[in-house]
Amino acid sequence: MKELRMAERMEKMSGSAVREILKLTQQPNMISFAGGLPSPDSFPVAKLQEITNEVYSKSGAQMLQYGITEGYKPLNEFIAQWLKSSKNITASPEDIQITSGSQQGIDLVSRVFLNAGDQVVVESPSYLSAFQVFNSYQVKYLPIPSDDQGMQVDELEKALDDNTNKPKLVYTVATFQNPTGITMSLERRKKLLQLADKHKLIIIEDNPYGELRYEGEHVPTLKSLDTQGRVVYLGSFSKVVAPGLRIGYAVAHPEIRAKITIAKQAADVHSSNLSQQIIYEYCNRGYLDPHIQEICRAYGVKRDAMFKALDEHFPKAVNWTRPEGGLFIWAELPQGCDTTELLQKAVEHRVAFVPGTPFFVNNTGQNTLRLNFSNATFEQIEYGIAKIGEVIKEYLTVNC
Amino acid sequence: MKELRMAERMEKMSGSAVREILKLTQQPNMISFAGGLPSPDSFPVAKLQEITNEVYSKSGAQMLQYGITEGYKPLNEFIAQWLKSSKNITASPEDIQITSGSQQGIDLVSRVFLNAGDQVVVESPSYLSAFQVFNSYQVKYLPIPSDDQGMQVDELEKALDDNTNKPKLVYTVATFQNPTGITMSLERRKKLLQLADKHKLIIIEDNPYGELRYEGEHVPTLKSLDTQGRVVYLGSFSKVVAPGLRIGYAVAHPEIRAKITIAKQAADVHSSNLSQQIIYEYCNRGYLDPHIQEICRAYGVKRDAMFKALDEHFPKAVNWTRPEGGLFIWAELPQGCDTTELLQKAVEHRVAFVPGTPFFVNNTGQNTLRLNFSNATFEQIEYGIAKIGEVIKEYLTVNC
Repeated sequence: MKELRMAERMEKMSGSAVREILKLTQQPNMISFAGGLPSPDSFPVAKLQEITNEVYSKSGAQMLQYGITEGYKPLNEFIAQWLKSSKNITASPEDIQITSGSQQGIDLVSRVFLNAGDQVVVESPSYLSAFQVFNSYQVKYLPIPSDDQGMQVDELEKALDDNTNKPKLVYTVATFQNPTGITMSLERRKKLLQLADKHKLIIIEDNPYGELRYEGEHVPTLKSLDTQGRVVYLGSFSKVVAPGLRIGYAVAHPEIRAKITIAKQAADVHSSNLSQQIIYEYCNRGYLDPHIQEICRAYGVKRDAMFKALDEHFPKAVNWTRPEGGLFIWAELPQGCDTTELLQKAVEHRVAFVPGTPFFVNNTGQNTLRLNFSNATFEQIEYGIAKIGEVIKEYLTVNC
Repeated sequence: MKELRMAERMEKMSGSAVREILKLTQQPNMISFAGGLPSPDSFPVAKLQEITNEVYSKSGAQMLQYGITEGYKPLNEFIAQWLKSSKNITASPEDIQITSGSQQGIDLVSRVFLNAGDQVVVESPSYLSAFQVFNSYQVKYLPIPSDDQGMQVDELEKALDDNTNKPKLVYTVATFQNPTGITMSLERRKKLLQLADKHKLIIIEDNPYGELRYEGEHVPTLKSLDTQGRVVYLGSFSKVVAPGLRIGYAVAHPEIRAKITIAKQAADVHSSNLSQQIIYEYCNRGYLDPHIQEICRAYGVKRDAMFKALDEHFPKAVNWTRPEGGLFIWAELPQGCDTTELLQKAVEHRVAFVPGTPFFVNNTGQNTLRLNFSNATFEQIEYGIAKIGEVIKEYLTVNC
C-alpha cells in the first residue's frame, strides 16, 4: 500500500527474525522448548466446565452484559484476601484492577507513566514481550546486569548516581525470572525499594511465575515490602489456572489504580465477564491453592528431568541456571557462539529453543538460550536435550 | 501520594463530571436512558450455555491454552465469509484481527497510526469513549458538523483545502451513529472515500450498530465501497450477541492488519479463547442472522414506543432525531439550556439520560442530550420520557 503514514512507535515494533524461525517450531513432530506455555495436562478442564455451567445458570444474563472496568467485584475481593494470606500483601479490593493477562498490566501501567523518551530500568536479560510494550511508548532503556541473585542493584545505584540517568520506571520479574529463572535476593529487593523511594521510581513487579516454587524458601514480594506505594504488582491466572481465559490483575496504590482504570476503560472497557466469573468461582471454591500444589509437583519433576538431561548431555563449556521454580532454564555458551545459528541446526533435527538475543535491549547475549520445561513430556525432555547437546557439541567443534 | 510523575497523556484522561452524576443512575428504582446497554432479555443465554459446554467437551485443553494473536482461526474465517454475504465486504481471514470489543480496535488502530500532535477528524458530536482513546495518543481534533445525513463531508473538504489542517485519520460511526442515531448518506460516503484517497487519510469505520436496522434501506458500508484499502472496519458482537464476552474485530488491508496484530500482541497477547470459540460456534450454527432479526424486532418496537412518548410528552421547543436503527435518539433543547443541570433535576425524579457535552470535542452541545431505548421496558419508556418531558417544561419556564 502506498503512503501509509504510520506512527513513529511502529518503527520499533516490527516482527523479529527469531519469531520467523520459531514459526518452524510449530511444525508437527517438533520437540519445542521454545514457548512459555503451561502444560495443557495441568488445566483443570472438568472443574472449569462445571463451574462455567453454573455461572450461566446462576447469572447468565448479568454475566453477558457490560461489566464495570475495575473488574468483577467478588474477584477483586478474593484477590485482595488471597494476596494477604498467600503473600502478606496488604491490598484492599479498591487497589486492584483486573487485566486481560499480566501483559495488559504492563501496557496499562506504561500508558499511565511513560512519555516518549522516558527511561525504563530493565534486568538484562528480561522478558521480551515487555520490551514490545515499552517500545510502543518509545522509551529509552537502562539495562542492569543480573547474576544468580537477580538484578545487580548496586549497578543500578551507580547508574542512578550518574546524573545522565533519570529513569521513571523499573520493570522486574523478580521471582523465577523470564528468561533466566533466577529469583532476586531479599537483600537486593530491600535495596531496590530504597532506591525507588530515593529516586521517585515506580516499580512494576511482574510476578506470573511466583507460585511455581519447587524447592527452597519463599522470598517476600517487593509489594509486600513496599511501604511507600511505589510498587505496582502484576499477577496472573495464566500459569496457575489457564492462559486462554486471559485474566490477570494489577495491584497499586489507589491513586495509581484509578489512573490504570481510566487507561483500561479506553483500551477495552473491561475484561471478559465470563472469564472473570469462572476464575472467581474456581478460587472461591478453594480449588486454587491445591491446584498450585499439584502443578508444582508436576513441573518440579520436569525441571528435575531437564536438569538431569542437561548434566548428562550438554558439554562442559555450557553453563546454565538452576532455578528453584518457574518455567525456564537459561544457558550460556562460550563467547563467540551464536545461538540463532544453532537454532537453525537444531530445527533441522526437529528440536527447538529460543535464542537469547531478543531478551536483551542492547543486542547482546548471542551466546545464550532459553529452555522451557513445563510443556514437554519426560521422553521429549530426555530426547530433545540430548539432541540439542549433540548439536551444540558439533557446533562448538566447528565454530567456537 | 507524593511526586507521582505520570505521563502527559493522563492530563487529558481524567474522569468527567458527567460520569460522577451517572453513578447516581445506578441507584435502585432509577429509570435510566443513559447507558448504551443492549437489553439483557436479548441475550441468548440458553444457547450460549449449551455451546460453551460443548466447547469444553470438544476442545477444553486447547481452548484453555494460549492462542494466536490474530484470533481463533475458524472465527476469522466465519467473519470473512459473513462480511461478504451480509455486507458485500470482500475480506480474507488474513485481513481480520479479533479484538476485545470494537473499543480495543479503536485503540489498536490509533497505536498503529497516531503520533502525538496528529490531527483526527471526528463527527461533531461523536462517540465519547473514542475521544478517551484519541486523547491518550495526545491528538488534535478536526471536528466536522453533522446533520440528518451524517458528517457534512463538504465541510471536511473545505477544512482539508485549508492547508493548516493535515489530518491523518477520520473516525466515523457512519451507521446509526452514537450519539445521534443518524446514518451517513451513500453520496457522502463516496465523497468521504474520495477525500481519503486524495489526502491519504485512514478511515476508521466503527460499526457496532450496523445490524440494528428497524426500517429503511441498507446503506453500503464505507469498507464495501473502499477500493484503496484506506478503511479500517471495526465490527463487534457486543450488540448482536453479548457485550460481556468482549469480542469484536478489525478488518484492514493486510499490511495494516499485520501492524494491528503487532500492537495487539503487546497490548494483551490475544482475546479470551473461550469467548472467541463461543462466538464462533454460535455463528457457525446459523444462530447469528435469525438472532439479529429477533433483536431488531424487539428494539424496533421500543424505538417506536420512545418516539411515541417523545411526541406526546416533550415540548415543541425540543427537536430530536428519528433514527432508522441503532440504540439512541438525540435531542436538542433551545440554545442556552444546560442539560447537565437538567440531568440533576431529572435524577431527583429518578430518571436519567446523558447530557450531550461529552460527545463534543470543543465543549459545545450544552443544550443536547442522548436517550437510549434498548435497555428499558415499555412502562419505563412511557413513564420516564413523560417525567423528563415534565422536567424539561419546568426547566424551560425557569431558565431558557
